[in-house]
Amino acid sequence: MKQSADVINNIVSVLQVSLPTDKDFIVLHEPSFQGNEWNYVKDCLDTGWVSSVGKYVDRFEEMLQEYTGVKRAVAVVNGTAALHICLKLVGVERNDEVLLPALTFIATANAISYCEAVPHFVDSCYKTLGLDPIKLGNYLHDIAEVKNGACYNKVTGRRIRAVVPMHTFGHPVDLDTLVEVCERFKLELIEDAAESLGSYYKGRHTGNWGCVSALSFNGNKIATTGGGGAILTNDESLGRLAKHLTTTAKIPHRWEFMHDHVGYNYRLPNLNAALGCAQMEKLPRFLEEKRALASVYQRTFSEIDEVSFFTEPDFATSNYWLNVIRLSTEWKHLRDEILQVTNDRGLMTRPVWKLLCDLPIYAYAPKMDLSVARELEKTIINIPSSSFLGAPYAKA
Amino acid sequence: MKQSADVINNIVSVLQVSLPTDKDFIVLHEPSFQGNEWNYVKDCLDTGWVSSVGKYVDRFEEMLQEYTGVKRAVAVVNGTAALHICLKLVGVERNDEVLLPALTFIATANAISYCEAVPHFVDSCYKTLGLDPIKLGNYLHDIAEVKNGACYNKVTGRRIRAVVPMHTFGHPVDLDTLVEVCERFKLELIEDAAESLGSYYKGRHTGNWGCVSALSFNGNKIATTGGGGAILTNDESLGRLAKHLTTTAKIPHRWEFMHDHVGYNYRLPNLNAALGCAQMEKLPRFLEEKRALASVYQRTFSEIDEVSFFTEPDFATSNYWLNVIRLSTEWKHLRDEILQVTNDRGLMTRPVWKLLCDLPIYAYAPKMDLSVARELEKTIINIPSSSFLGAPYAKA
Repeated sequence: MKQSADVINNIVSVLQVSLPTDKDFIVLHEPSFQGNEWNYVKDCLDTGWVSSVGKYVDRFEEMLQEYTGVKRAVAVVNGTAALHICLKLVGVERNDEVLLPALTFIATANAISYCEAVPHFVDSCYKTLGLDPIKLGNYLHDIAEVKNGACYNKVTGRRIRAVVPMHTFGHPVDLDTLVEVCERFKLELIEDAAESLGSYYKGRHTGNWGCVSALSFNGNKIATTGGGGAILTNDESLGRLAKHLTTTAKIPHRWEFMHDHVGYNYRLPNLNAALGCAQMEKLPRFLEEKRALASVYQRTFSEIDEVSFFTEPDFATSNYWLNVIRLSTEWKHLRDEILQVTNDRGLMTRPVWKLLCDLPIYAYAPKMDLSVARELEKTIINIPSSSFLGAPYAKA
Repeated sequence: MKQSADVINNIVSVLQVSLPTDKDFIVLHEPSFQGNEWNYVKDCLDTGWVSSVGKYVDRFEEMLQEYTGVKRAVAVVNGTAALHICLKLVGVERNDEVLLPALTFIATANAISYCEAVPHFVDSCYKTLGLDPIKLGNYLHDIAEVKNGACYNKVTGRRIRAVVPMHTFGHPVDLDTLVEVCERFKLELIEDAAESLGSYYKGRHTGNWGCVSALSFNGNKIATTGGGGAILTNDESLGRLAKHLTTTAKIPHRWEFMHDHVGYNYRLPNLNAALGCAQMEKLPRFLEEKRALASVYQRTFSEIDEVSFFTEPDFATSNYWLNVIRLSTEWKHLRDEILQVTNDRGLMTRPVWKLLCDLPIYAYAPKMDLSVARELEKTIINIPSSSFLGAPYAKA
């Protein structure tokens, strides 16, 4: 009979053997600045263009468009701001409900709160770790009705305006199935692609299915601008509106101050965009390294039974932003002990987020059965995932 | 009889003689990066600490505290975000009214809108270009009443919660008089000090009178972080809450995600804070240069009658962030022509903001008589003010 200590030691050993580094503490994700970061940032300082307009903002937006294939990318100050504006763009209003996974980062729900709308929590699925579109469809069949082209919650009486799936740790949700649910129930689709830059669903980059989508370039993401985000859309008029609303809604004029909306100061500074341009140049390499590391983890963890390494869904090519192991049912009671021991031994690990519906601030929000999300919450552990850790394993 | 063309030529000549530069186009305000900017920014890239936590964020906040004399400074992503949180911190709620000058940048009103509160526009005074506290006191005497320790608008029935003066172009409003009005009418005072870093009222730095105050470090400000801002307060518990609310309201834990408020992602990235630290080191020099330039303008413009150069109120030592000339009544009809000719000749000038109550988005908002603000709107022209323009005039 296996002992708890053996289980924990096995996990530590597999992590140690997988990670080619002599660092004393291996964090979950750290950025890599081996490209043109210095050159571009120094150019900003040398020319004085550090602030809200500048060539790197334009270039960064163009690089995002080219890379993701969307028609318009609008750089903003962070992913939360991107989500906030996405919700505004699809018409989310006070007292609307917005569907989102219970298992996501707080920003997804907060952005809904900023619109004075009500988060409505949806379960996840084991295949993607993200929102389960089939379970959502069945749930809406029971609780929702479509009237005059809009969806209403029969229980609360409120309009349900949109659904915001999040591509958890870079693994895309089943977008085709979700699009079908959205069409059936007249819901706007917003992809929270904060974690999925470099992740593809059926060969096309995430962020192309939503009416609008949000990216993040926080310091822990696969590519970073220090702090930053972007709004993606294939609707050019929404793209123009996104740029307008995030830049104080000022009507261009040589000197006059005319603003036609209550706009936002969500502009990404040129200094941060410069960093982003250099990071985007390196993104293909980061992806190779991260996928190589995931491949090593997949092999090394296959040798122990206590945990399983999470791999991309069959319809996806994922960025493996944060790698995930799941504890088997037998050993999930050891989660906190494993977190304790690994962190004590210099291997940073972390559980997934607490289900948002369990935070007192969101206890008021409606929710469906969340049994899968609850099981995932108890069993997921994130393990070190920085791209440099995969470098020795990636093709030269 | 003087001709319009002579007036305009006189103004152009005075600007040209005042400005010691051979640049083809002299902008209103450009930053100067002659200090440790590159060293500190490079340090962020070399160490990988570019994002939302890092030593430069801490150091920048300490430098702001030391410089302004407030107990707590909290660095945030920009001045608009700082104002938004200031309003939340003093308890502004949906349908409250908040008093602010009609003559200010759109951010002051937008931050009020983000709280679902109602801007209520106040007149300015000639002495400071900012909110007129005496006229405000008289107005409140007529339209407001204090009940149960709170101020109510007898006309609209709404609670009036706070007043947000803005220190226009760096010139402080008469804070002692305004504090007295706030005490009389039970209003919270928030200083919009976005433009007044380095400006003192009766020898003490602006931002010390408000319950909370907001700074901006946008690219056009006297010191810049690319984009950035700060919340200032002498109330340590409000300072802690400001930090908490602007950093997603996460309760510190080694790995758990517990958030106890609907918080904001308003963190200033370490990369931008690094720039801010270097700029703060140079701030005393920037002030010398800017005050030297203002002094030159004061002398050169004294030689023509058509305009007067605006100088600091007697109770203030101002940063002269953006220099101001005011057209005499006789020539104010030439404003747009002067703007046209000066900009065409490579001398950037700009009118003051359109009164916010005249924007369709704020037409619904209550307002008092705004005759002084209207006159200022018609007669103010901002002229080039970058610190480097004053360098040849400042003490070595």
